[in-house]
Amino acid sequence: MAAEAHQAKWESFKQYVKKMKSYEEAIGLIYWDMRTGAPKKGIAARSEVVGELSGELFKMSVSEQMREFLEYFTQPEHQEGLSRIDKRIVSECKKEYDRSNKIPPERYQEYVVLTSQAESAWEDAKHTADFESFQPYLEKIVAFNHEFIELWGYEGHKYNTLLDMYEPGMTVEKLDQVFGALREQVVPLLSAIQASGRGPENGFLKQTFDQDKQKKFSLFILKEMGYDFEAGRLDETVHPFATGLNPGDVRITTRYLKDDVNSALFGTIHEGGHALYEQNISEELLGTPLCTGTSMGIHESQSRFWENVIGRSRSFWSRYFPDLQANYPGQFDDVSAESFYLATNEVKSSLIRIEADELTYNLHIMIRYEIEKALFDGSVKVADLPRVWNEKYREYLGIEPSNNGDGVLQDVHWSGGAFGYFPSYALGNMYAAQIARTLDRELGGLDELVAQGNLEPVKAWLTEKIYRHGKSLTPAEIILEVTGEELNPRYLVDYLQAKYNDIYSL
Amino acid sequence: MAAEAHQAKWESFKQYVKKMKSYEEAIGLIYWDMRTGAPKKGIAARSEVVGELSGELFKMSVSEQMREFLEYFTQPEHQEGLSRIDKRIVSECKKEYDRSNKIPPERYQEYVVLTSQAESAWEDAKHTADFESFQPYLEKIVAFNHEFIELWGYEGHKYNTLLDMYEPGMTVEKLDQVFGALREQVVPLLSAIQASGRGPENGFLKQTFDQDKQKKFSLFILKEMGYDFEAGRLDETVHPFATGLNPGDVRITTRYLKDDVNSALFGTIHEGGHALYEQNISEELLGTPLCTGTSMGIHESQSRFWENVIGRSRSFWSRYFPDLQANYPGQFDDVSAESFYLATNEVKSSLIRIEADELTYNLHIMIRYEIEKALFDGSVKVADLPRVWNEKYREYLGIEPSNNGDGVLQDVHWSGGAFGYFPSYALGNMYAAQIARTLDRELGGLDELVAQGNLEPVKAWLTEKIYRHGKSLTPAEIILEVTGEELNPRYLVDYLQAKYNDIYSL
Repeated sequence: MAAEAHQAKWESFKQYVKKMKSYEEAIGLIYWDMRTGAPKKGIAARSEVVGELSGELFKMSVSEQMREFLEYFTQPEHQEGLSRIDKRIVSECKKEYDRSNKIPPERYQEYVVLTSQAESAWEDAKHTADFESFQPYLEKIVAFNHEFIELWGYEGHKYNTLLDMYEPGMTVEKLDQVFGALREQVVPLLSAIQASGRGPENGFLKQTFDQDKQKKFSLFILKEMGYDFEAGRLDETVHPFATGLNPGDVRITTRYLKDDVNSALFGTIHEGGHALYEQNISEELLGTPLCTGTSMGIHESQSRFWENVIGRSRSFWSRYFPDLQANYPGQFDDVSAESFYLATNEVKSSLIRIEADELTYNLHIMIRYEIEKALFDGSVKVADLPRVWNEKYREYLGIEPSNNGDGVLQDVHWSGGAFGYFPSYALGNMYAAQIARTLDRELGGLDELVAQGNLEPVKAWLTEKIYRHGKSLTPAEIILEVTGEELNPRYLVDYLQAKYNDIYSL
Repeated sequence: MAAEAHQAKWESFKQYVKKMKSYEEAIGLIYWDMRTGAPKKGIAARSEVVGELSGELFKMSVSEQMREFLEYFTQPEHQEGLSRIDKRIVSECKKEYDRSNKIPPERYQEYVVLTSQAESAWEDAKHTADFESFQPYLEKIVAFNHEFIELWGYEGHKYNTLLDMYEPGMTVEKLDQVFGALREQVVPLLSAIQASGRGPENGFLKQTFDQDKQKKFSLFILKEMGYDFEAGRLDETVHPFATGLNPGDVRITTRYLKDDVNSALFGTIHEGGHALYEQNISEELLGTPLCTGTSMGIHESQSRFWENVIGRSRSFWSRYFPDLQANYPGQFDDVSAESFYLATNEVKSSLIRIEADELTYNLHIMIRYEIEKALFDGSVKVADLPRVWNEKYREYLGIEPSNNGDGVLQDVHWSGGAFGYFPSYALGNMYAAQIARTLDRELGGLDELVAQGNLEPVKAWLTEKIYRHGKSLTPAEIILEVTGEELNPRYLVDYLQAKYNDIYSL
């Protein structure tokens, strides 16, 4: 009887978390719809619908019932019959319960209102390059985060608690080590490139490209990647994204710029990489909190693997450039696959993160990482940010913004309180390079497969090693199990050096 | 203090019903998405999301909290401070509470499972024209409805309780009267038309029509009607529909047939009529159960008013035929506005309701009404349906289906237990004609306005008289207030006689 009661309790817990997942899915669909074409006069009422559902979801995550479930299933004697995955479901719910429960609801409510006001204040401030108008908001947001960190608790650096929200288990100690090693190689590499005075011809990238043709080619490449159109769809938005509603419905969006052939293409491949991850999560995780990517960093590793390691490779363009030519008749007649490859890999110090190339992107992230860390150990104040920002750009990239709109105000993240998020992007690059190295070895040559347009084994390997596990393995477990060692920045360094030494004949 | 507590209770009740409305809106959006392009592999999981949200909504509608609210706000001394609309909100919730609460949950659950199985059994049965395979399902569904009627209670005819679900206040007595009067005139009119041996030339309707052009013309006509594209959108589906998620987001769908210029056009106008109703509900009803059309019959009156009274009128084509010609260059060069008008109004006895013309459509409905009524007073058994159906088609329309797929199995309604729904369609025609008569008088000539393409005053008048009230007035109140008398079939008879005597030179 005890066993039956135990089993019934487990079933009831599974139903409970499945219900939470249903709410998440409904909210996800509403957001997708708002961004892709919901009529604007309906948005105000729709936002209240999101508010109701989100409120309900939050209540479920910290309810008395959840507390009872967790109290019961975290007791060692009740964990015995549970599988490894079951235990992860419990610990995932526990983590969210603790995180939400430790903040007094009225403080959290104030914070939500603040960040929502801060986002529009940031938009105005960015537009007018007026840091002072945004500063009071940012100071309050940072203060709130200090307060939350105290409530949540922390080990080592305070910033660790924020990092953990996006990259579970990641710490300042680890990031200092990997970013340090990366920086040591990337900065000289950039200097060498700049000193070489060389740069690819890329004028042919700036023509007028028919939007329907861009869409057609984006769809073609997605198909080549193995994106399942019966489990997803491609739409248009101003800010492209991927959203995994459930593994059978993973939608992506892109944006077509009429004077840029690459923006929509690489954007689509990037979001397609996120989508492959979500489409190939194992069915057994459906309806559980593990049915999603394991971290922002691992997710980003997949978008960047497909976008950069594959999409910006020589072998990719040796295979697909003729298709590109055929897609835009007369527009690339005098261009070779090799010149197109070179043009898509130009390195150039720039002020804006989202426009950065594969190499300098990492430096943009390190700057933000160092600033965030300093905000949370108190060594930098919000008021100092513009000065610190500009100094670091000078130091890392050799350039400095002429106004704060192109500098410290360029990203939306801080206005929403998303401290700890930025490192994911560079972690994604490091994970991607490390995973690519193992994949290359195990499949006997990634370049050959790409050159043949034989991407199916690549997707299958990633599914087997990463995608199917969803959140049932931590980022550290995945990297260790897949590559046999923990995160090591050497692979990204090797990859970047090999690629750019070749391109720039260094 | 008592007044404050009373006020607080009312606010809390309003919040509660607003939350229910939010769930409805989320569910509505999910259904729209499923029908317009959700990836098929995600549907199974999405259906469970709908199940969770619908279950929650149902629980809210019959909860202990709702019981308390209703007990309190239905007491005369607590109704004193409430506005007319507030009282309607209470009575609407009470009606739903009683309806849901009187059915034992396990019986309702069985019924839901049965109807869901019955729908696929019906699809197969229709396809193979095999009534016997569907009969056991239908017998059970009818038996369930008998049981529910006993639980809900009824006044007069048992079928009244079912009618009330779609047309609040409608009774067999009233329908017998209005359908009797209608039948008395429509049947001889149809005979006269058939005896005349005349019929319009309509070969030019059957050409190949480019789909993009069809879409363009549909959008043009919607705009002319005053459909607000900032509060809606037009998509494609196999079975067209309109869905009012909130008054700022009322979406419609249509289906383009490449060999039929009229199908998508009149379908769009029809759904556009439903949409105008939902788009123009007063803002003060937002977030309440009154923020929707008042009944199926009044809703249908609006789709049919725009589709038939306006869209199939001579004045409409005198105004818009040149636009149609310009939209399809070379395809209607030798056709006049008058011939196009005549062709779109051909009367012809046919077996299939959804393909019927404006005149015979009413007869298809009367047949179904008589059968449903007989099923619930016990004078007809499910086993007799094919025979009864065919006899009635012979009697009313002079033709008989050669198989049950084109006969008794043609409609989906009964497989879902939707008895009492069919009369709405013919009620819609009667309401539309009666309302049109008043509108014509008050605006000083509907035909003139339509002939000028001046549809704005028409929409404004309907908004003032009908749309803005949503469900805050009953169908009977609307008809009485707008036209000065209760539902009277004479207006539809007059309209049909005038129209077809002219067209067929009778």
